[in-house]
Amino acid sequence: MSQVSEIIGEGGKVELGTKTPLRLDCGVDLGPFTIAYQTYGRLNAERSNVILVCHALTGDQHVAGPHPEQGKLGWWHFMVGPGRPLDTDRYFIICANVLGGCMGTSGPKEIDPATGKPYGLHFPVITIADMVRAQALLLDHLNIEQLFCVIGGSMGGMQALQWAASFPERVFSAVPIATAARHSAQNIAFHEVGRQAIIADPDWCGGDYFNHGKRPTRGLAVARMAAHITYLSEAALTRKFGRALQDRKVVTYGFDADFQVESYLRHQGSTFVDRFDANAYLYITRAMDYFDLAEEYDGALANAFRETKTRFCVVSFTSDWLFPTQESREIVHALNGAAANVSFVEIETDTGHDAFLLDEAKFTETLRGFLGGAAEHRGLPLR
Amino acid sequence: MSQVSEIIGEGGKVELGTKTPLRLDCGVDLGPFTIAYQTYGRLNAERSNVILVCHALTGDQHVAGPHPEQGKLGWWHFMVGPGRPLDTDRYFIICANVLGGCMGTSGPKEIDPATGKPYGLHFPVITIADMVRAQALLLDHLNIEQLFCVIGGSMGGMQALQWAASFPERVFSAVPIATAARHSAQNIAFHEVGRQAIIADPDWCGGDYFNHGKRPTRGLAVARMAAHITYLSEAALTRKFGRALQDRKVVTYGFDADFQVESYLRHQGSTFVDRFDANAYLYITRAMDYFDLAEEYDGALANAFRETKTRFCVVSFTSDWLFPTQESREIVHALNGAAANVSFVEIETDTGHDAFLLDEAKFTETLRGFLGGAAEHRGLPLR
Repeated sequence: MSQVSEIIGEGGKVELGTKTPLRLDCGVDLGPFTIAYQTYGRLNAERSNVILVCHALTGDQHVAGPHPEQGKLGWWHFMVGPGRPLDTDRYFIICANVLGGCMGTSGPKEIDPATGKPYGLHFPVITIADMVRAQALLLDHLNIEQLFCVIGGSMGGMQALQWAASFPERVFSAVPIATAARHSAQNIAFHEVGRQAIIADPDWCGGDYFNHGKRPTRGLAVARMAAHITYLSEAALTRKFGRALQDRKVVTYGFDADFQVESYLRHQGSTFVDRFDANAYLYITRAMDYFDLAEEYDGALANAFRETKTRFCVVSFTSDWLFPTQESREIVHALNGAAANVSFVEIETDTGHDAFLLDEAKFTETLRGFLGGAAEHRGLPLR
Repeated sequence: MSQVSEIIGEGGKVELGTKTPLRLDCGVDLGPFTIAYQTYGRLNAERSNVILVCHALTGDQHVAGPHPEQGKLGWWHFMVGPGRPLDTDRYFIICANVLGGCMGTSGPKEIDPATGKPYGLHFPVITIADMVRAQALLLDHLNIEQLFCVIGGSMGGMQALQWAASFPERVFSAVPIATAARHSAQNIAFHEVGRQAIIADPDWCGGDYFNHGKRPTRGLAVARMAAHITYLSEAALTRKFGRALQDRKVVTYGFDADFQVESYLRHQGSTFVDRFDANAYLYITRAMDYFDLAEEYDGALANAFRETKTRFCVVSFTSDWLFPTQESREIVHALNGAAANVSFVEIETDTGHDAFLLDEAKFTETLRGFLGGAAEHRGLPLR
């Protein structure tokens, strides 16, 4: 697909909440805290071309370009760059590691300035709204008043919705993708399985594994394996693997990975533990579980968007059973109920929830089209 | 629902494979081995009124009546008894614990006669066909030539299909419920997550936990939690729990079971480990993964049923996403391709895969009707 060259991002780290701490939903005042972020492209003179990309549960700020630690390209590299839908010749892209994350932003893995040791479970439990508040402080620091667009898939979509609700005047357009305005019972259940897999690992040490020189890699791998199934679809698993055997002609009558799908899942589990912190997994899944945007607005989601001027593009995927289209429809209904400017695109694909991470033409063209149209409304020059 | 009294089953245990061992699919000769079973009702003089019930992954032979260990009624108590669809005034019901199980039949938990110690991972890996062969030996022992019906849900349905394919002349009718002729990639993946959760538990001790005085209860509980989600449906979870909190008015900003659905899942996990053996979970899930009935017949499922005289009733449930209706349709297509006598019922319900364990009128009446009709064809007297 990509004949354009990969863009190199610029990294930054900023200490925030130094003068006034950040009041979190749990009641704790957090400060100082660190936000690690990446930028791509150039901020224009009017500071009006900013796209804030919000990452998903296990994503990070390395949206494009080579990932400094993982030795591969950023998770949306096909989406971000010169001539791509998030065109770095036109827009200035920012992505920050979420609060509670494990890629440089303050979270359970980082050192608690008060003790000099990793926070572990002493890190306060955060919410999607807290993540967004921290991002707003980052924008204040960067002297950016309004976002041209806030965009993200899955948990990134939750942040996009929260941005539009909490800071409507700062959001010209918003693109929540493969997401929901509240986490469903089934999704809470899957998260709880993952958390219990981590907590069941003796190497978790009550959350204090760093101080014991251990890491709950087995539990975290099981959590990832269970979650990974939910990111795909039955059709995609059947198409990719079916009942094909792994490097063998007959089954072994044992508990090795006889089937390719087993081998694939094990690989997903074992590589994940090299790049992710188990406690961060607990914190971020919890933030998603707690997400229920309507709750802040007397239970009526439309109230979250009253008198909004933001232009919305809601995107879902037909085979996504983790955040099914119905959940996007409920967002669209609420936006309609607030007479908001909203377009809704359901994209036909068998690739499940992970479709938002895939370079599929119908999806990339949807984003290219919406962003281009919104840019015209915003009066952004073509280049 | 039930105004009739509960029936008390009669238990039996028989040692089989004493003269000639059972040749398993894996090539091992197993013998002697034990089959534990229950019967309900009375065998008629013609020995023609036998219904073999095949249980699912975590089920057992205690289909009806009070369970001797679990202090509750058998898993299909509403289905089996005087006047019930599996009418014990009319039929003689047999259910045997599957080979590899943990309720008295030979399996990894039982003592290996060769060593005097629990088999553990020395128990041979078994298949659905092996389970059925062992049941056939039990019927030989009981001097029962032909089954009036073989019936079961989920893995029980796999056994019903295998029975009809392997011993067509011994099966007058067959009722595979909420099942498939081969285990899908997604289902293998979910099983692999469960197995890895068990294997990741240090108390599993390489499968040798009994000899170490331990039991991998944490891993087994996680396996059960993950599996349990797949037995329900998103709609049922939303209807039953939604985002309701457990014994609290506000979230705790922590990792306790804030949500009812979390508390429910944890309960499912923690009660399961009291009644099930972790190694048996490995063996039985493996048997399901290996199930691919068409494979024995040159890949054409219809060949498994060539010239069959068995009357089939295939049942699926609309909200079952573990064994979706499409899998039942493929069975029906194959049976049609063999010009078999088959009826197909898809039952509308939001209760997911577990619907086959629930006392829902449309389901019980379906079984009552089919069995009654088949009994007429078989010439069984009304009482």
